[in-house]
Amino acid sequence: MSHVQHASIEAVPAGWRLPGIANLHSHAFQRAMAGLAERQTHPSDSFWTWRETMYRMAGRFDPDALHAVASQLYVEMLEAGYTTVCEFHYLHHAPDGSPYAAPTEMSDALVAAARDTGIRLTLLPVLYMTGGFDGRALNERQKRFGHDLDTYLKLFASLHARQDDMLKVGCALHSLRAVPPDAMQAVLAALPTDARIHIHVAEQVGEVQDCIAVRDLRPVEWLLRNAAVDARWTLVHATHLNDWEVAGIAKSGATVAICPTTEANLGDGLFRLRDYLDAGGAWGIGSDSHISVSPVEELRWLEYGQRLATRHRNIVVEKDAPSVGRNLLAGVLATAANATGFDAVDDSIVLDADAPQLAGATADDIADRWIFSGNRNLVGEVRVAGKRVVADGMHVDRESIAARYATAMQELLAG
Amino acid sequence: MSHVQHASIEAVPAGWRLPGIANLHSHAFQRAMAGLAERQTHPSDSFWTWRETMYRMAGRFDPDALHAVASQLYVEMLEAGYTTVCEFHYLHHAPDGSPYAAPTEMSDALVAAARDTGIRLTLLPVLYMTGGFDGRALNERQKRFGHDLDTYLKLFASLHARQDDMLKVGCALHSLRAVPPDAMQAVLAALPTDARIHIHVAEQVGEVQDCIAVRDLRPVEWLLRNAAVDARWTLVHATHLNDWEVAGIAKSGATVAICPTTEANLGDGLFRLRDYLDAGGAWGIGSDSHISVSPVEELRWLEYGQRLATRHRNIVVEKDAPSVGRNLLAGVLATAANATGFDAVDDSIVLDADAPQLAGATADDIADRWIFSGNRNLVGEVRVAGKRVVADGMHVDRESIAARYATAMQELLAG
Repeated sequence: MSHVQHASIEAVPAGWRLPGIANLHSHAFQRAMAGLAERQTHPSDSFWTWRETMYRMAGRFDPDALHAVASQLYVEMLEAGYTTVCEFHYLHHAPDGSPYAAPTEMSDALVAAARDTGIRLTLLPVLYMTGGFDGRALNERQKRFGHDLDTYLKLFASLHARQDDMLKVGCALHSLRAVPPDAMQAVLAALPTDARIHIHVAEQVGEVQDCIAVRDLRPVEWLLRNAAVDARWTLVHATHLNDWEVAGIAKSGATVAICPTTEANLGDGLFRLRDYLDAGGAWGIGSDSHISVSPVEELRWLEYGQRLATRHRNIVVEKDAPSVGRNLLAGVLATAANATGFDAVDDSIVLDADAPQLAGATADDIADRWIFSGNRNLVGEVRVAGKRVVADGMHVDRESIAARYATAMQELLAG
Repeated sequence: MSHVQHASIEAVPAGWRLPGIANLHSHAFQRAMAGLAERQTHPSDSFWTWRETMYRMAGRFDPDALHAVASQLYVEMLEAGYTTVCEFHYLHHAPDGSPYAAPTEMSDALVAAARDTGIRLTLLPVLYMTGGFDGRALNERQKRFGHDLDTYLKLFASLHARQDDMLKVGCALHSLRAVPPDAMQAVLAALPTDARIHIHVAEQVGEVQDCIAVRDLRPVEWLLRNAAVDARWTLVHATHLNDWEVAGIAKSGATVAICPTTEANLGDGLFRLRDYLDAGGAWGIGSDSHISVSPVEELRWLEYGQRLATRHRNIVVEKDAPSVGRNLLAGVLATAANATGFDAVDDSIVLDADAPQLAGATADDIADRWIFSGNRNLVGEVRVAGKRVVADGMHVDRESIAARYATAMQELLAG
């Protein structure tokens, strides 16, 4: 992994200019339940009880609510320094599972939210077919996520035809448990060659165990042996890996989308980052469930998690690149184009030089200071495709979008 | 542990009013190196190499620099919702180790910073006598921290005589390695009965090993067997505990000051919170090295660390108190008076009801939303002893204090 070139951090009159950050994993609707899933009385709360809360919230969304919540979320992302978002989108149908008259109606809401706020969108319509590795049918709450192969490929084609400078369309396989092997092969064969492919994999120990029970292999090993995983692929989470899998992903050229705040909130576990870097692996970050929306918190706690596990400091540091912040920034910048499909050269953020956290800063330490000091948001200005969407730390439509969001939340919480 | 009473979270016209939060552990000067210790090229960086960087920074401070840096820090604390700070203060003498003409000169700088910003200060002058459990003399860099018993007790007495509604003075024993057993007994016997006693203990595995080697006991066990540890005591970190020690601290009535962001930054490890709560233990939080200054980040990652270690969710939750946020808040509020010496009933913070993170909030979920959603600071107003020091999210003297801080940082970084 090469560290950030000096050219990518530049002193400008307002402060320090950096490239925009790509957010590789988002379920926009989950923004509405941030902070609302911390009170289960279940004696042993886990990912699986959290998922029930999430399904209940998902069941209340219509296209208008999704538009309002996604718009607020994308404002928060832009203000935090994310300039591209990969939307892993499975909320396709009406709450009772019946398709909308226009099958793209929920996708349209996300596209509109991205256009309204000015963030680049990599839309990843999700293929979700079965409720488990055993091939069981979707339950009532999962029905609005589901497609057969034919309807999925039609949805994909109609979205893919709309691609432009601000919208890319890729394919998301929800997970190995939700996509049978033959369906996976059929979809992969049908995709256009430019399409990025994202998949949830090995987030939970239970998922690893179920995969072994049915397919005789751990999920990442199964995937690497049954698909031509390459640089077009993004593996989301990949938390539970053995040594062979660490080396295998690294060798494939795929990107791992690590989601440190969500993986902590859900008790998933820690990604084996140092081992993966030693194998030459590529990675990025995602805010996933949006309990946090901040590249600073993701990168800070990605590094801190490794420190807690090893009881050493400065884990993402190399002899020829002695700055953890620069190395973390280099990591996410190196994979953005592969994971998103955008060559986002006209996207930039400016860190406010007047902020006390940056007093006396130099280009050498700006990345460390941004990621490892304090709690005030330092992002003053954000440009996407050259257009300024955040000024003085605030999105240009912050107030009106927040007002629509507040109304939508009242309705969702009453629902 | 009882959960927060409804009365402690109150709807007011501007938003939601909560009690102020006590910050139980601060080394103010370390604010100047936040983000500047993440680039050691040491092949195996650790607490001990970090400490060398910290000693170099400490060596550059004079009273004016300490006043400027502490003022900025206290502004940041107040804006984040901390209304009291416990200052674990060991930077007593001139850089060459010689005492200032007025022995309280560096303490005076902290007192002035607290008065200027309006935060309550529990000043804890530190007794620091030896460089290790073997009783070795202080090294060159540690000399400005050192006292003999007589000069320490004089310093303590002159500060203690100044106590008032905004200033309490307690005693900090730096650590077992820095205070020989007979000196500890002599100081404890000499303290006034109202004085709080704070001590660093069991932060690092190396410290535990050294204590066993010299004193035949682990540090917390040694302390519990050799001092009358009670509710006047605050044990800082207490990261590495066996079962006997977990139960022993809980039974003593002492408070453990957990510093999750610093303990992660330094690779210390995770406090055994769930076991300690099951034993009835009392605890609070501290921002310690100030790489972060936010009760939200401390409490969020205190809970998240437990989730990562156990692979479950909602760890600080009880059957009769099903809200992690309320339980965390109850934890820090319950110990504030014991640890700080203040009965800070006139201190309050108001969370901004217009913030998108609080859309549709109720008194039941406000604590969860504050601690577990998003990254914007929600603290709009702060009152200390009834006086408003933060309005619209900004300290009333934010600009002038930041300007002085920027000047001081230029000098410190050139030094």
